[in-house]
Amino acid sequence: MKNVLVISGHPNLKRSYANITILDELQKLIPNVEIRKLDELYPDYKFDIEAEQSALLKADVIVFQFPTYWYSCPGIMKLYIDLIYAHGWAYGSKGKNLVGKTLIASTTTGGKIEAYGRDAIVKHSMDDFCAYLEQFAALCNMNYGKVFCSYSMRYIPGVFPDEKKQDVIDRAKIQAQDLVKYIETL
Amino acid sequence: MKNVLVISGHPNLKRSYANITILDELQKLIPNVEIRKLDELYPDYKFDIEAEQSALLKADVIVFQFPTYWYSCPGIMKLYIDLIYAHGWAYGSKGKNLVGKTLIASTTTGGKIEAYGRDAIVKHSMDDFCAYLEQFAALCNMNYGKVFCSYSMRYIPGVFPDEKKQDVIDRAKIQAQDLVKYIETL
Repeated sequence: MKNVLVISGHPNLKRSYANITILDELQKLIPNVEIRKLDELYPDYKFDIEAEQSALLKADVIVFQFPTYWYSCPGIMKLYIDLIYAHGWAYGSKGKNLVGKTLIASTTTGGKIEAYGRDAIVKHSMDDFCAYLEQFAALCNMNYGKVFCSYSMRYIPGVFPDEKKQDVIDRAKIQAQDLVKYIETL
Repeated sequence: MKNVLVISGHPNLKRSYANITILDELQKLIPNVEIRKLDELYPDYKFDIEAEQSALLKADVIVFQFPTYWYSCPGIMKLYIDLIYAHGWAYGSKGKNLVGKTLIASTTTGGKIEAYGRDAIVKHSMDDFCAYLEQFAALCNMNYGKVFCSYSMRYIPGVFPDEKKQDVIDRAKIQAQDLVKYIETL
């Protein structure tokens, strides 16, 4: 198995059902996976650039795991991307540290699957909305893997029935399992 | 003239040439414009949700002014969007506070214009990369205005020649002037 680094971009995993389940399942399924939870590491947004870059250097496969907020990644994940993948380190004529690694986007959304697609209400697929990550990978000379997404993943205690919670958790586990199967093919 | 609110998403305007020029020019050209500079207001990312929502309520036109970082808005701007445009306030069956307002994206990028487009190196136009903002506006029942973008806007003192600085400033002023002309047609 390759060295897998998972960056969790959920801003508050204590209130998460889907993302925390995916992370726990990845921890169980991938020996020696490194999972870095940005919300726990950087509650004040003071990123340790050296520690993050050092984790990236050791990885063959980098998974960005995040809930989709406004058709994109959460702010804390974008801050991480802006700060860590610096010119001269991640890209540019002297920035060759990520060449040949694989980036995988793994996300969850409250939106229904029927809402996504070029002829659907939001006019774009999740792949389309992840185009910024595809081009980010390209500029860093990383391979860009498949986008993993589960839809209808919102559960709010007391508002949604309990069965919905179990459904979200069950499908989150399947997403993690599919992700692991995919990584094994790389 | 309509009430115009400009949200500046540059993470450090002290080091900006293009964005600060655009903001200064908008200040000069639009009487009573309100410009909110997120980097100055929230250096610790502790957003004042009430103050931001109150500024939005007064506006007819909302301009997101930001440098493009990794084909998207900077992290501080995404944090602002995630936090301020809350369910039940900006969208959802009880969230009707932004209905009918117009959202305009105004951005700058270091990339060349030739790099953008479906057959070009980054495979997407700037309009494509702003799709998340278009759908964000749609979900809040806002009108979505034209995307303004100037390319080749990177200037680094000591690295680039002085003429480049003047070129960036000149084109930034034109972007602000074009933006104001467009707002006048709304």
